[in-house]
Amino acid sequence: MTISIIGIGLIGGSMALTLKEKGFVTTTIGVDNNPVHEQKALELGLVDKVLPLKEAVAQSDIVVLAIPVSACVQLLPAVLDLVDKQVVLDAGSTKQSLINAVKDHPKRKRYVATHPMWGTEYSGPEAAVADGFANKATVICSKEDSDADAVEITEQLYRTLGMHLVYMNAEAHDVHVAYVSHISHITSFALANTVLEKEKAEDAIFELASAGFESTVRLAKSNPAMWVPIFMQNRENVLDVLNEHISQLKKFKACLEKENFAYLQELIEEANKIKKVLNKKS
Amino acid sequence: MTISIIGIGLIGGSMALTLKEKGFVTTTIGVDNNPVHEQKALELGLVDKVLPLKEAVAQSDIVVLAIPVSACVQLLPAVLDLVDKQVVLDAGSTKQSLINAVKDHPKRKRYVATHPMWGTEYSGPEAAVADGFANKATVICSKEDSDADAVEITEQLYRTLGMHLVYMNAEAHDVHVAYVSHISHITSFALANTVLEKEKAEDAIFELASAGFESTVRLAKSNPAMWVPIFMQNRENVLDVLNEHISQLKKFKACLEKENFAYLQELIEEANKIKKVLNKKS
Repeated sequence: MTISIIGIGLIGGSMALTLKEKGFVTTTIGVDNNPVHEQKALELGLVDKVLPLKEAVAQSDIVVLAIPVSACVQLLPAVLDLVDKQVVLDAGSTKQSLINAVKDHPKRKRYVATHPMWGTEYSGPEAAVADGFANKATVICSKEDSDADAVEITEQLYRTLGMHLVYMNAEAHDVHVAYVSHISHITSFALANTVLEKEKAEDAIFELASAGFESTVRLAKSNPAMWVPIFMQNRENVLDVLNEHISQLKKFKACLEKENFAYLQELIEEANKIKKVLNKKS
Repeated sequence: MTISIIGIGLIGGSMALTLKEKGFVTTTIGVDNNPVHEQKALELGLVDKVLPLKEAVAQSDIVVLAIPVSACVQLLPAVLDLVDKQVVLDAGSTKQSLINAVKDHPKRKRYVATHPMWGTEYSGPEAAVADGFANKATVICSKEDSDADAVEITEQLYRTLGMHLVYMNAEAHDVHVAYVSHISHITSFALANTVLEKEKAEDAIFELASAGFESTVRLAKSNPAMWVPIFMQNRENVLDVLNEHISQLKKFKACLEKENFAYLQELIEEANKIKKVLNKKS
């Protein structure tokens, strides 16, 4: 099979690399609106060749969109316009806007809405790695709106990446990712800004930043070109979660202000229950 | 040399293990108010023997307190009462309360106030590891209030652990750790509670928790027995930082509410500057 990857960055590049290595596809075609990325992807061996969109789709069995969700909403209908029997899927972090954008498209059933739940704080072709996806979940949304053969190829593709599949509708997906992914990024961005605001005049302090700080602030390196569109598209869910998170922080604040350390202990014991959740996962 | 470690958990156990391995000490003595921990520490080979406090101090050249900061404030004066020429140091995450607690003690100069900036979300003797401290910073506070030989042995000890040394007074230390360590923990606890509050009825969702979520929420597993006393002792600094952090989060909230995505982009670009800081460290 031949696959076209639109957007040869962290996600698209990693996918191309792994699917070729595992023998799921024989040819990988890259499509990118940034010629520097195209060149780099070729140099790094992420794809076999680069082509303009139209030729790429014509030569492919599978087309993957791995671009910011705002660009995806624009491009997906245009890709479906070019499609005959190809399977089209996307890897975006929000799903409702995208599904709405193509709900009346005559080729809608060739499209499978997916979200592989892996990423790092880095971006671009240089950030691509083999096997990053292994043991993570991929969400497939509203599979009943896609052709059965398209869903099946998509499932095989993600299983080849070592991922397990979770099924839900787009609305549920967008709520849940606000909790388990989008809020972590906002927290991390805000934490970085908190520290940078205070410590701007004091270089020496960063000597102290310990492993705990680094792990909570790691996501603050994430690319705004990816994240602003996610927050735009999932605005209402993210706002709900952010309001809840600010309320939770205010409970900690009230404990400190009132020196209510018994309640502080309870809040931390409650938070410790996340252990069970994280253990269940692995 | 012989070292006594009071509190044979994550920090004390890791210290004993590494200092013995590197040949900095020949004998390690454990002291713990929990007999289960004492037994476990012996089984795991973290210490050569366990003794009651008084005998342990009498047989030692160096005494390390690696217990919660509230217990440390109680115990440090009692340990100094037992001291002749021994060097006493602690590994607590707050420094002002502790230094105040012994400021008029006749043996004050045998005590060196230190904070090795390493830890994990785990606790107890089973959590101890060799080499966890390597390449991290240790803060030494107000070294001019300690005997020169005591400071020198302390510096050698931390260098043996592979750490580099940073010097500051206790007040500056407590402000800075509120920013680079304590706030990360509050954020993480509150994030865990945000998600647990919402998702309590939906087990399946945790399938989705991705690497980003795990890294931001990892610290939420941390032990309240350690953290409540830290927040008590560093209450005012932590409150200042928490207020600043809530303000930063409210900026993100305002951007989403007003759909001001240009400002959201700016906030994220600002947060991205943490890259430079984290890179400078390594």
